[in-house]
Amino acid sequence: MTRSSSFDPPERLLMGPGPSNVHPRVYAALSAPVVGHLDPVFLTVMEESKDLLRTAFQTRNELTIAISGTGSSGMEACFVNSLEPGDRALVCINGVFGMRMREVASRCGATVDVVEAEWGTAIPAEAVAEALSKADYKVVAIVHAETSTGVLQPLAEISRLVHDHGALFLVDTVTSLGGVDLDVDGLAIDLCYSGTQKCLGCPPGLSPVTFSPMAMERLAARKTPVQSWYLDISLIAQYWGESRVYHHTAPISMNYALREALLLVAEEGLEARWRRHRQNQEALIRGLQALGLSLVVDAAIRLPPLTTVRIPDNVDDAAVRQTLLQRFGIEIGGGLGAFKGKAWRIGLMGATSTERNVTTLLASLEVALRMQGYAGGGAVEAAISG
Amino acid sequence: MTRSSSFDPPERLLMGPGPSNVHPRVYAALSAPVVGHLDPVFLTVMEESKDLLRTAFQTRNELTIAISGTGSSGMEACFVNSLEPGDRALVCINGVFGMRMREVASRCGATVDVVEAEWGTAIPAEAVAEALSKADYKVVAIVHAETSTGVLQPLAEISRLVHDHGALFLVDTVTSLGGVDLDVDGLAIDLCYSGTQKCLGCPPGLSPVTFSPMAMERLAARKTPVQSWYLDISLIAQYWGESRVYHHTAPISMNYALREALLLVAEEGLEARWRRHRQNQEALIRGLQALGLSLVVDAAIRLPPLTTVRIPDNVDDAAVRQTLLQRFGIEIGGGLGAFKGKAWRIGLMGATSTERNVTTLLASLEVALRMQGYAGGGAVEAAISG
Repeated sequence: MTRSSSFDPPERLLMGPGPSNVHPRVYAALSAPVVGHLDPVFLTVMEESKDLLRTAFQTRNELTIAISGTGSSGMEACFVNSLEPGDRALVCINGVFGMRMREVASRCGATVDVVEAEWGTAIPAEAVAEALSKADYKVVAIVHAETSTGVLQPLAEISRLVHDHGALFLVDTVTSLGGVDLDVDGLAIDLCYSGTQKCLGCPPGLSPVTFSPMAMERLAARKTPVQSWYLDISLIAQYWGESRVYHHTAPISMNYALREALLLVAEEGLEARWRRHRQNQEALIRGLQALGLSLVVDAAIRLPPLTTVRIPDNVDDAAVRQTLLQRFGIEIGGGLGAFKGKAWRIGLMGATSTERNVTTLLASLEVALRMQGYAGGGAVEAAISG
Repeated sequence: MTRSSSFDPPERLLMGPGPSNVHPRVYAALSAPVVGHLDPVFLTVMEESKDLLRTAFQTRNELTIAISGTGSSGMEACFVNSLEPGDRALVCINGVFGMRMREVASRCGATVDVVEAEWGTAIPAEAVAEALSKADYKVVAIVHAETSTGVLQPLAEISRLVHDHGALFLVDTVTSLGGVDLDVDGLAIDLCYSGTQKCLGCPPGLSPVTFSPMAMERLAARKTPVQSWYLDISLIAQYWGESRVYHHTAPISMNYALREALLLVAEEGLEARWRRHRQNQEALIRGLQALGLSLVVDAAIRLPPLTTVRIPDNVDDAAVRQTLLQRFGIEIGGGLGAFKGKAWRIGLMGATSTERNVTTLLASLEVALRMQGYAGGGAVEAAISG
């Protein structure tokens, strides 16, 4: 095999479902000198990160840390710590990540029931209420921002139902943290996981999680050990807490990067950041609509960091994405699951969410569509007219 | 909380049990532009990494990849994929990582028996033979390089016993891969995990693993799903294989870094690399012995990348390490478990293993010991006299 010893990956414009582009300050932090995982310098990084994560999650939860794996490891951490064999869980499914939650929960030995809604729509609170009336659930899980569909799930009413039921409320916030309002304490979310490579603008590799005091109480009252040693929050909490008991060697460089990404979030301010994500999506949508393209998700539940757009008839999905990637160096996402070949996923997350990136994509997309015989124009003009 | 917005961690000399120092080329790779996890550029990185990992592991195993978590996640991946509830496993324990393997195996629902040996000694093959005569085991697990004691475990005879028994041979090679001879195919190891932050000289965050064809066959024949979705090798193999089925978003930057670290290993050559680790340990030992310090482990089973040395009477463990860290910027490791307060662990791993680092440490250690009233000198001269 030929190896390129001089490694020089291209500078992509990452406008898919993640990873998103990384801020230069985050790259610099990533390659800062590694110190030991019990070095006072690193312990300070951990303390600062916990504090900054609490700001981003809008929570006062003591247990607010980064799991040493990607977003899916955070998902697994939430389920293995909250479910025991024989428990009953209710999982809401309206896309790929709800399906994944069902799979992860069932591997914990739980009985899993589901509430389903059509892909591209939100889960209706009434459907959750009905399910809750039929059985006794330990955990109810839902996706805040479905990366496979671009739906932003309303949570307030469902949270009320779940807590009236006495269950723990478990929420996937992989594509919402740092990009849209996510009020963990206000919404009484008990277990919540996210990823670093979406709206935080950090490379993939860590999963921020936060557990409410109630989640920690239930964890302490378990009858069986958590099936994953690596993701056992009681053990991990000892390393991230004052006793600093060695559990595993933390990914030092990735934690440097996350801290820097979170500092950028704090410096920008949460509301300004959400507004930026919203405004740039609005510009993108004006451009897409000028091109005559239609959106998958209704305006009321549209996820600002990720826009799903229908692929027009007679346009070759792969060829368009190939042109964008190979000719213009722009990555957008293909459809997943039910949307495979039917929709594109355009991400405007973290550092990627700028007006210039919107106009760059629209201009390139016009060219790529024209190569497919699809006539349309004026996208950039429409985008900047807002 | 005060946050340092200009992040500038010190340049430590990392001579503990890991992480070790990172080569400038690896830092550069770490901060190279992120691309998507299905980008052709990244797929090439994955292919090159598999190939380079096979070289480092000395194996032809098709399933040779990096798990998206630290070394402990690789440990868990090996156990959850090879054990089902009700299976019987035999775990050899002569230090912290054997203890951890027992814990992880038992959380898989397996019945776990153990063979124990005193900390600082190796597991005798006879003890394994005796245990195997008493029950039927699915998996036998042992640590090649015990990071808590500095013992290099002889494996050939035990491997023969395990295979005669019909069990899978599972080996922890966290502190041996890239630092000492590790012949996965020659030793017929079936399941093997390592870490990036030891002798590969990469930051922590990934776990190289390799599974033999027999391990893959047994995996395919399981009756129950692997309890961890995140670590399910059948699913992960589809992403790392030709079908590229999405599983989780790979840690792009860490994989860049690992590929670069593995290229450095290949360029140096395995035998030259093992020799370097051995020779620098010999220099270190000459220096430590000149200081009158005694070693924990017998010469025949001493692990070249990690030397355990007894803390002299009337010397304050923490004070010496504090002086080394705060005054000289050198990290060495304290004792773990049975060796807490009794031994130091001095790592010469990967890029850290140089003669200059040996002499730098010895000179600094002399000063730190003298501050504790411990008289001794001539360490550097002894080290370079080899």
